[in-house]
Amino acid sequence: MSALSSPEAGRLARLRRLMSGAGVTAALVTSPANRRYYSGFTAGDVLINESSGALLITRRSQYLLTDSRYTEAAKDEAPLFKVLEYRRGLARELVGLKTLGPTVRLYFEAEFLSASQLFRLQETLGPGRLAPLPINIDAPRAAKSPEEIRLVSKALAITEAAVAALFEKMAPGLTEREAAFFLEAEFRRLGAEGPSFDTIVASGPNAALPHASPGRRKMRAGEMVIVDCGARYRGYCADITRTKILGRPKAWQREIYALVRQAQLRAIEAIAPGVKASDVDKAAREHIARSGYGQFFGHGLGHGVGLAIHEAPSLSARNTGPLSAGNIVTVEPGIYLPGRGGVRLEQLVLVTERGRRLLNRNTDFYEF
Amino acid sequence: MSALSSPEAGRLARLRRLMSGAGVTAALVTSPANRRYYSGFTAGDVLINESSGALLITRRSQYLLTDSRYTEAAKDEAPLFKVLEYRRGLARELVGLKTLGPTVRLYFEAEFLSASQLFRLQETLGPGRLAPLPINIDAPRAAKSPEEIRLVSKALAITEAAVAALFEKMAPGLTEREAAFFLEAEFRRLGAEGPSFDTIVASGPNAALPHASPGRRKMRAGEMVIVDCGARYRGYCADITRTKILGRPKAWQREIYALVRQAQLRAIEAIAPGVKASDVDKAAREHIARSGYGQFFGHGLGHGVGLAIHEAPSLSARNTGPLSAGNIVTVEPGIYLPGRGGVRLEQLVLVTERGRRLLNRNTDFYEF
Repeated sequence: MSALSSPEAGRLARLRRLMSGAGVTAALVTSPANRRYYSGFTAGDVLINESSGALLITRRSQYLLTDSRYTEAAKDEAPLFKVLEYRRGLARELVGLKTLGPTVRLYFEAEFLSASQLFRLQETLGPGRLAPLPINIDAPRAAKSPEEIRLVSKALAITEAAVAALFEKMAPGLTEREAAFFLEAEFRRLGAEGPSFDTIVASGPNAALPHASPGRRKMRAGEMVIVDCGARYRGYCADITRTKILGRPKAWQREIYALVRQAQLRAIEAIAPGVKASDVDKAAREHIARSGYGQFFGHGLGHGVGLAIHEAPSLSARNTGPLSAGNIVTVEPGIYLPGRGGVRLEQLVLVTERGRRLLNRNTDFYEF
Repeated sequence: MSALSSPEAGRLARLRRLMSGAGVTAALVTSPANRRYYSGFTAGDVLINESSGALLITRRSQYLLTDSRYTEAAKDEAPLFKVLEYRRGLARELVGLKTLGPTVRLYFEAEFLSASQLFRLQETLGPGRLAPLPINIDAPRAAKSPEEIRLVSKALAITEAAVAALFEKMAPGLTEREAAFFLEAEFRRLGAEGPSFDTIVASGPNAALPHASPGRRKMRAGEMVIVDCGARYRGYCADITRTKILGRPKAWQREIYALVRQAQLRAIEAIAPGVKASDVDKAAREHIARSGYGQFFGHGLGHGVGLAIHEAPSLSARNTGPLSAGNIVTVEPGIYLPGRGGVRLEQLVLVTERGRRLLNRNTDFYEF
């Protein structure tokens, strides 16, 4: 594939249209997901941190600034970019670039620049030269290409295989942390770079906490265990949640499990291009509320997934924007009963031209 | 141990002396290492990120702001702190605190606050209320207590055992990435939380790159492989580097290996309280330079290690400050021959009242 017909060429063109519409002549891109999306730079599929590079994108040129570890890989992976090795820190390298000139204003990603980086840039570039980006440069990432859909699906297949392997061996006595480590080792054994976020394994009363961290607690017979995890494959994230009941399900466990699963199915059925994200959230939420558990489902229904584990579009009451083809979203309702336990079930769904397509291969849920 | 006699009580007292000397009446602590050091808050030994909490320390009171995942653990672990659960973001919680009042200036850690957090704080608190900390609140961490030395030593023992296990099985055909994953799995199997930094496994020509990321490259007979890794144990980091020669060492490999090892021993011998850090660096560097390899040792000799993998004091030409008892530093000279390979050897050394103590148990080096 020539550089000119690469996905990055199209992405840069879209970004420049966004920039030009807002009068932005120079953008500094420092978030790992946008850096990768617009340049193709992966740094060997290792999770790269802020110090590993930044993009400077102006009307006509684009630069990738990185350190000596990555310059060779960057040239291979980002042929559209002029790769500059930085030795003296970002601010000093930027001020030396002719393309910025003495007057051009530089717009930055405020969530992905530290206050100290900002101060150094202000000091080096001079007053009035910096402003946060007035446009959402993440937005184009919400519409996934066929290749991106393939990569998320591959990350998901790895995740499902790892969870299936864990559920084969998961039994009373296993600690949450052992289970989490097992999953992450499986991800890697199956070809992933690693986890796409901190694995959640929450047993017994911990399952009532939506974001519990896996601890030294041992699982016990009769408990429910929530496993929420995802592999990262060539930069793309997966995200699934399964809840396992260790032993014979009790009546209350069956009840909330069945409710959550029904709510999930209703939400998935509601997904289609043009549908408000908030209406998908509502489909699940109302089902749970009608059964009297509304107060025990305290988080949003889902979120977009791609190069970042949380990205647009979110499925929540607050997001009244429409879904569109190419969105990939999680659908993850839950019911959490303080002190007792909880259930969360999460699938990944692609919005298609005509409706939706489930990306999960396994639909290995209890049927109550 | 009562809260009043806890290590955190002493640390807070030292911090307040620093603050008071610089006229700082309120400090916002957001770096993971300082948050843990001053409060004791570990969040279950999971690597916690920025969103998991912040400390607000004023002349007379101290608050730990965290989200609902961690409030219970925070109360247990940080009994000296008033734990506040934040629901509406850091800025909104802070502005509601009486202790800040309408005029107190809030000083922050500029490396550990994003530009967008800064803007939100500025907007919420009003003009002139924020400034970067004019004091180095990391500084007290450089003097390790006996308990901290024990924890670093434990992290190191785990690391050494994992590297020994890897070296048993490391052979041509193994990929760098497989080796890295093996190490990280061993760390966890042996009781660590995980790696304390991104594991480096660099084989053949990659060993000439001091910060290579482990890739899909297979190791080959006759090559040198640099392994640089560390486990994290109860928050404390270890850091060691070993270089293995796969097969019968060639003359050039023996030569640079022996040189690096000699340089390391000279540097270790130079360590004592009161000695300039730059002089320790010089002891290793001059030995390598005298043999004509000076240009192939391009990085500093070492760095402090504790709750962060890189902390004070650094051992480099630029740090002319004196070492003092309680410092723990890496000593890691290297020689890197572009296109051919390289050697780096790294030990962890404690500065004692009278000199130094090697923290490594294994001194499993080739003897040439």
